[in-house]
Amino acid sequence: MKETNKNGNGINSNGNTNGNGSLNGNKNYEASSLDYKLPNSKRVYVKGKLFEDVNVPFREISMSPTRLHDGTLEENGTIKVYDASGSWGDENLKCNSAEGLPAIRLKWIKERSDVEEYEGRIINPLDNGYSSHDEMSIASNGKNGKLEYYPGLRRKPLKAKNGGAVTQMYYAKKGIITPEMEYIAIRENLGREAAINYSLNNDLNRNEINWQHKGEPFGAKLPEYITPEFVRDEVARGRAIIPANINHPESEPMIIGRNFLVKINANIGNSALSSSIDEEVEKLRWAIKWGTDTVMDLSTGKNIHETREWIIRNSPVPIGTVPIYQALEKVGGKAEDLTWEIYRDTLIEQAEQGVDYFTIHAGVLLRYIPLTANRSCGIVSRGGSIMAKWCLAHHKESFLYTNFREICEIMRAYDVSFSLGDGLRPGAIADANDRAQFAELETLGELTDIAWENDCQVMIEGPGHIPMHMIKENMDKQLEICKEAPFYTLGPLTTDIAPGYDHITSAIGAAMIGWYGTAMLCYVTPKEHLGLPNKKDVKDGVITYKLAAHAADLAKGHPGAQVRDNVLSKARFEFRWEDQFNLSLDPETAREFHDETLPAEGAKLAHFCSMCGPHFCSMKITEDVRKYAKEVGIKEEEAIAAGMEEKSKEFVESGAEVYMK
Amino acid sequence: MKETNKNGNGINSNGNTNGNGSLNGNKNYEASSLDYKLPNSKRVYVKGKLFEDVNVPFREISMSPTRLHDGTLEENGTIKVYDASGSWGDENLKCNSAEGLPAIRLKWIKERSDVEEYEGRIINPLDNGYSSHDEMSIASNGKNGKLEYYPGLRRKPLKAKNGGAVTQMYYAKKGIITPEMEYIAIRENLGREAAINYSLNNDLNRNEINWQHKGEPFGAKLPEYITPEFVRDEVARGRAIIPANINHPESEPMIIGRNFLVKINANIGNSALSSSIDEEVEKLRWAIKWGTDTVMDLSTGKNIHETREWIIRNSPVPIGTVPIYQALEKVGGKAEDLTWEIYRDTLIEQAEQGVDYFTIHAGVLLRYIPLTANRSCGIVSRGGSIMAKWCLAHHKESFLYTNFREICEIMRAYDVSFSLGDGLRPGAIADANDRAQFAELETLGELTDIAWENDCQVMIEGPGHIPMHMIKENMDKQLEICKEAPFYTLGPLTTDIAPGYDHITSAIGAAMIGWYGTAMLCYVTPKEHLGLPNKKDVKDGVITYKLAAHAADLAKGHPGAQVRDNVLSKARFEFRWEDQFNLSLDPETAREFHDETLPAEGAKLAHFCSMCGPHFCSMKITEDVRKYAKEVGIKEEEAIAAGMEEKSKEFVESGAEVYMK
Repeated sequence: MKETNKNGNGINSNGNTNGNGSLNGNKNYEASSLDYKLPNSKRVYVKGKLFEDVNVPFREISMSPTRLHDGTLEENGTIKVYDASGSWGDENLKCNSAEGLPAIRLKWIKERSDVEEYEGRIINPLDNGYSSHDEMSIASNGKNGKLEYYPGLRRKPLKAKNGGAVTQMYYAKKGIITPEMEYIAIRENLGREAAINYSLNNDLNRNEINWQHKGEPFGAKLPEYITPEFVRDEVARGRAIIPANINHPESEPMIIGRNFLVKINANIGNSALSSSIDEEVEKLRWAIKWGTDTVMDLSTGKNIHETREWIIRNSPVPIGTVPIYQALEKVGGKAEDLTWEIYRDTLIEQAEQGVDYFTIHAGVLLRYIPLTANRSCGIVSRGGSIMAKWCLAHHKESFLYTNFREICEIMRAYDVSFSLGDGLRPGAIADANDRAQFAELETLGELTDIAWENDCQVMIEGPGHIPMHMIKENMDKQLEICKEAPFYTLGPLTTDIAPGYDHITSAIGAAMIGWYGTAMLCYVTPKEHLGLPNKKDVKDGVITYKLAAHAADLAKGHPGAQVRDNVLSKARFEFRWEDQFNLSLDPETAREFHDETLPAEGAKLAHFCSMCGPHFCSMKITEDVRKYAKEVGIKEEEAIAAGMEEKSKEFVESGAEVYMK
Repeated sequence: MKETNKNGNGINSNGNTNGNGSLNGNKNYEASSLDYKLPNSKRVYVKGKLFEDVNVPFREISMSPTRLHDGTLEENGTIKVYDASGSWGDENLKCNSAEGLPAIRLKWIKERSDVEEYEGRIINPLDNGYSSHDEMSIASNGKNGKLEYYPGLRRKPLKAKNGGAVTQMYYAKKGIITPEMEYIAIRENLGREAAINYSLNNDLNRNEINWQHKGEPFGAKLPEYITPEFVRDEVARGRAIIPANINHPESEPMIIGRNFLVKINANIGNSALSSSIDEEVEKLRWAIKWGTDTVMDLSTGKNIHETREWIIRNSPVPIGTVPIYQALEKVGGKAEDLTWEIYRDTLIEQAEQGVDYFTIHAGVLLRYIPLTANRSCGIVSRGGSIMAKWCLAHHKESFLYTNFREICEIMRAYDVSFSLGDGLRPGAIADANDRAQFAELETLGELTDIAWENDCQVMIEGPGHIPMHMIKENMDKQLEICKEAPFYTLGPLTTDIAPGYDHITSAIGAAMIGWYGTAMLCYVTPKEHLGLPNKKDVKDGVITYKLAAHAADLAKGHPGAQVRDNVLSKARFEFRWEDQFNLSLDPETAREFHDETLPAEGAKLAHFCSMCGPHFCSMKITEDVRKYAKEVGIKEEEAIAAGMEEKSKEFVESGAEVYMK
């Protein structure tokens, strides 16, 4: 990232500064194994109007021209698509994971003059799962669990001055439009031409929004254009969040809220059974290549502090974690040994690293635990079950609940967003929408108010396993109880009987709940319930959730979403095979599947496809129909106007003449 | 099928009876390459009460016992699941594709005394795509396109005596319960114990049905038990069909209607570019192994008559076709050369072979064609585009429409069901729910009435490419216009942008429209829009649609459907890994995915899984929670009773005591 370093953005590539000596200097951290380039695509940037250093990335896909019947060519131009791949996706930047990404937000954060650098918490061996420096040192040289310290310069952490709030919600409530908000407005408009001057427009477009929760069928409609003022207003109302820790300046601003594009999250993370730091960074880069909007690092076991450092420094998307996982490591895996002090220290540790949102299961109250006893699948959330065990062992209310205001103070000082966890979510169709689940939701509503009082950003996590007819109740209750705070759901899975295919059972529920208003969908991979996702599973999960989110965007009336469907369908109809591949969510698979049947390059120019062969292709026949209609002089407009019932009777009678001429 | 041959059911395995000599006698048609056995499963039959030779197959999956905390074992017994694999799935029967399956319905058909054998139409070379006997003879010995005549005895075709009707609808309207209807009632009850005596019960359970199409959220509920009388009544009303050509006595009765389990269809068929007869039969057997309820043979090109013969003789599920495809072959692929006479002859040819339902695009009227001219994707139905071209070329109304009453006479003489094709279905999101689509639907409603007047069974085909918020309008309009005739949809695909993943984009729409009341879902494979499905694609398509149909069954309140979810989830919660695999739709994949992370056999007994490792498993913690709660004497019932809002406040106060004891 040499250019960026010259700009003095705080990243220093001169080796390992932590003095531990464990950096493997011979390792090649170049992004050689991952090619970010997608076919016929290039990175373009759209500049802000309010802030000159707002540069919003898009992937611009160029299309080949249409050959008209008279042989002339008609240009199809280009289309911009949302691009979450960050600097990794800019072929002009040579990114290197040992150096990290450019800190694009650092200037904005510092210019607000409300943060200060400080020494920060000292990293101790326990943060990486070791009981002493000796043990860590031995492990660092061991064959397994080798500790690869992040080699780039560690910036000193920032926090709010004087116990203030530095959250996007705080600024929004003050009426301040941040550069992050303008960035998001441009991003959400998908670079559409007509939206270019929206920035100077203060119109909220409120009257264009329609969420028809009563009546049938369910209907929604989003505003034609997103203005920075609209972004600000949604964040101020708590209806959307911008997860943007001041210690993660590498992140590109994005928004999670139901009046915006539906986002997806991909979970990565090692586990007690496998994985290394290298693999985790590669998983991150792989997931953002295919379009995930945020990544949750769910690592457990050894070296999770250092793994997280590598991930955050290399991530252009917000990173979420579940801090109780690390806290549990620090007490040797014994839930009953957890303390508020250890948990609090872990929050600060992770906030200083730059985690953008924390899943906190503060709604698992002592009195709710017995409600799960007769469930089919009990408590399936790991965080939920840890807290349940703690509560029972101590006969006390959850320390997450009793210390919630203090947690808010930490969150607001770094702008870490809450993701209030659903520790009692149903893990089986039989447990869907039960009392335990909704009891917890009520507590999450109560906590939402407290977070908002503290100017903290909040989203609410949701289930789980829910049959289709019970999904909408989840959305309706969440909107009411949590006052429209963004909903972030896992699926939901619409049946339990298809392990191995749970990316699909859950994509059904995810698309539906996205349509109803869920702001972010946590992906599920084909390995759910069975094992750890490999690279293919991560990709399958991401693409499946991208298509589910897009289906939801179409259904909720996002005005820019359908453009991509339209150009792809036009390419399909015109047998522009290459364009059809290039415009799809996964050009590689589309091309590979085509080539399995018709491998020759010439086939990609053919005016037929492999399904019907050259003679019986319906699209070819339709072309003939149109050509024929043209030859015999049919006036299309007239014919279309005749489409109404009575008109069409006239048309039959006069039709022969029209065609006979 | 030796046992069956001894029973004199009309199948004769003594070689090739057509005298052509092209049968390759050395070929091994044994089902060696396809193992139908699924783990821990056995075929069981439930006998009818009204008809003694009604024997309904189920797959019975046995489960291992649960080990309770005190070490004792609690039996989990067995579960019966719907089984579409026919005799192929009975390990005690050694089926052989050259001999065909047992003609289980032949006795029932003949005992009704309303059919007669006749000589039938003479098969000519054109039926297989050859212009002369010479050409056929040469091709028969050629390397490609080799003609493998079906070697079993060709039964003489049956048809209704004296121009009568032999349809299940005709019997139903007369008040007659056929053996087919009892068979279906048993099948639809999923072999549940409490349903055993339902047969003698004439109760329609009408008052238990609820299809709440107005109000929000959409709600549905099916009757607790299906009685034979209920089946009869639904068929008489036209709300359900039993596709059961009298010349396909090998088929096992099944029903398509919204008050029954949602069914799925898999398309197979060669194309101009690939495939052979062997492959087609294997595709059929593969598709029914994974659970498809019907199969459409969409073959084109050479040898389609003989391919169809092989498929029907080996199929326990109803076979559908699109006769216009074969008719088009007979006129050398030139749509304008089609005639009513050629089409009519093709209908009879296929009806004599035993095709159970015909897709007939009789709603593509001349006056509707111009409505498609400005569409994004024109006409994407192959049948629709063929008819559009014919109509335009002749300036005439479709011969399918003008001769519809004569078509009805053929259908009723063999009990071929109509599947009224949606030739103008939208092929892109941009074209969804447009005037062309709904204009055709109105004509299909008109034709439904005519078919019913003739006692013909009818279902209506539906789209296509529809965004989620426009799906319900399709169902509502279809129910109204076609007076509740069963709806049979292709997906619908909820976005155009994911070629390579269209089994998923369409499963979202399919599950939703299944919930709303669609009776059968035509599968879409990952190769849709790109190429021909291979074996893996067919399986992926079938499993994806089985899970979508099941999700719909859960959502529409089928009382027996959730049993399988419940036992699978119980197995999951209790770490009975083998049971979890065995109860899933695809045990092979579930086991394979598990073994990728934890291959050791011992891991399948472990009380943790590969996601969280041994120490942090939420299910393990929940077990601990329950155990703990038991140790300290918590009364579960009391705690659960305290679940209501006010009660839970009391509980908090008294809770400490409960836990402290």
